[in-house]
Amino acid sequence: MSDILVVGSLAYDTISTPSGRADRILGGSANYFSVAASQFAQVHVIGVVGQDYDEADIRLLADKGVDVTGMQRVSGKTFHWEGSYKGDLNEAVTIETALNVFADFDPQLSEAHKKCDYVFLANIDPDLQISVLNQVKSPKLVASDTMNLWIDIKKNSLLKVIERVDLLTINENESKLLTRTTNAIAASKEILRMGPKAVVIKRGEYGFVMATHEGYFILPAMPVPEVIDPTGAGDTFAGGLMGYLAKTNQSLSTEKLKQACLSGTVMASFTIQDFGLNRLRSLTASDFETRKQEFLKVITL
Amino acid sequence: MSDILVVGSLAYDTISTPSGRADRILGGSANYFSVAASQFAQVHVIGVVGQDYDEADIRLLADKGVDVTGMQRVSGKTFHWEGSYKGDLNEAVTIETALNVFADFDPQLSEAHKKCDYVFLANIDPDLQISVLNQVKSPKLVASDTMNLWIDIKKNSLLKVIERVDLLTINENESKLLTRTTNAIAASKEILRMGPKAVVIKRGEYGFVMATHEGYFILPAMPVPEVIDPTGAGDTFAGGLMGYLAKTNQSLSTEKLKQACLSGTVMASFTIQDFGLNRLRSLTASDFETRKQEFLKVITL
Repeated sequence: MSDILVVGSLAYDTISTPSGRADRILGGSANYFSVAASQFAQVHVIGVVGQDYDEADIRLLADKGVDVTGMQRVSGKTFHWEGSYKGDLNEAVTIETALNVFADFDPQLSEAHKKCDYVFLANIDPDLQISVLNQVKSPKLVASDTMNLWIDIKKNSLLKVIERVDLLTINENESKLLTRTTNAIAASKEILRMGPKAVVIKRGEYGFVMATHEGYFILPAMPVPEVIDPTGAGDTFAGGLMGYLAKTNQSLSTEKLKQACLSGTVMASFTIQDFGLNRLRSLTASDFETRKQEFLKVITL
Repeated sequence: MSDILVVGSLAYDTISTPSGRADRILGGSANYFSVAASQFAQVHVIGVVGQDYDEADIRLLADKGVDVTGMQRVSGKTFHWEGSYKGDLNEAVTIETALNVFADFDPQLSEAHKKCDYVFLANIDPDLQISVLNQVKSPKLVASDTMNLWIDIKKNSLLKVIERVDLLTINENESKLLTRTTNAIAASKEILRMGPKAVVIKRGEYGFVMATHEGYFILPAMPVPEVIDPTGAGDTFAGGLMGYLAKTNQSLSTEKLKQACLSGTVMASFTIQDFGLNRLRSLTASDFETRKQEFLKVITL
């Protein structure tokens, strides 16, 4: 079935940006991804939360039609990340990561979840990504994301994930770290050699490079008047991308990936306009379509 | 007449990049601009060189059809710039600037030069830019460039130039410095308030933002397998842009500016592939057209 399964973090974040500070607001890769992808397709979320996780934050997903039966609530506290953005809004400085209930997370998929055709392994421990990947039956398309932490401390596991996914999404700096190259084009070539059919290198306000064995596709990001909080932009991008592919039931042709990336970058432009999920949660299909048309004007000769 | 007048530096540069080092090679904004623009239109160059300037370096321009009668040779040494690029190829660190004969440069235009329709005031002392601007009779389009040095030490003169030009080209960091803003979109709005009808904010490997009162146009740069030396990319961009406008005898409509920026960014992608003018000087119309088509594939949905 053309449903999307996502495994990732459900978190509370404390974030400082030049625009202000937000304490313990809803975050986590699986939340950003699910809200974005739910604009286009049926999403099933796999994750773990603690006793402190607000029922309203589960309802947020449920109200978007997301299947939350794969969310476990266990004793302990919810994953918490504290980060800060200084001059460079393209890169967060992590102040503290408290894994909490995430430390013992061992995702077990239901029979229904195992049959999802589109799978997104958000940025979590690559051993957990492998565990989920081993449980899904015959997915049509698997994508994953990662971060510098896993490149530093679990590179072997990470390489095993990358070898098995169809698409990797990764930040530009992390793509250089992973491949020991100095530019996004060289990094994308190395990543394609590692196994994926496609890679999307995310450049923050500068957009992205999408590469397949057929060639490159490069776009800037949609500019917004003011970036309030860039947290979650990458996961939102992935949600818009996977949502588009699932909705149109597409595999990884370069042409369809271009449209999917367009969907991702337009979606991400909303996330950065407010703290956390504040802007994304109220997004309508009409907001999305209007901005997509604006963006097409900005990039079209 | 649809000819282009450019005033700028004719220089010898000593450049270190991660790819190597080049000692006292031909450089200067007017050289990069002229070689690029001469692909499309008749260029007249205004500048000054010292006794050490090689005749072969004048012939390089003359062989491209550039009118070099506005180049003065005076006693003393040619302008010399020494710079280095470290990890970030988007930004040069200046090690030494020796103005030499440029210190007493007082450009006097011939009657023919005063009648040029397209004028580019390359990155030089804004008082010299004003002097040239006061001599041209009724140009159809005037563009200028600048750098952090003039923003720091001659801001008043610079603002007078900006007020009078139709188009400003400027690096992203310098646009933020000039306008005291933190992003390219905000900077472009401020610059449009200063007088120009259009501004192009150059982002190095990330391309550019072009803004007019009608809206924005944003493109990434054409990726090349290896950036050897980014020096002159901005002046090459301006040359490709002004050359396109002069050739097609265009004023500043947003649609024509888009095509002109495309021409500029494609042209600049050659400059960075070798030290100094090495790649640009041998460029053919067919090389340019081939890469333009490649670039269109990379950015087109």
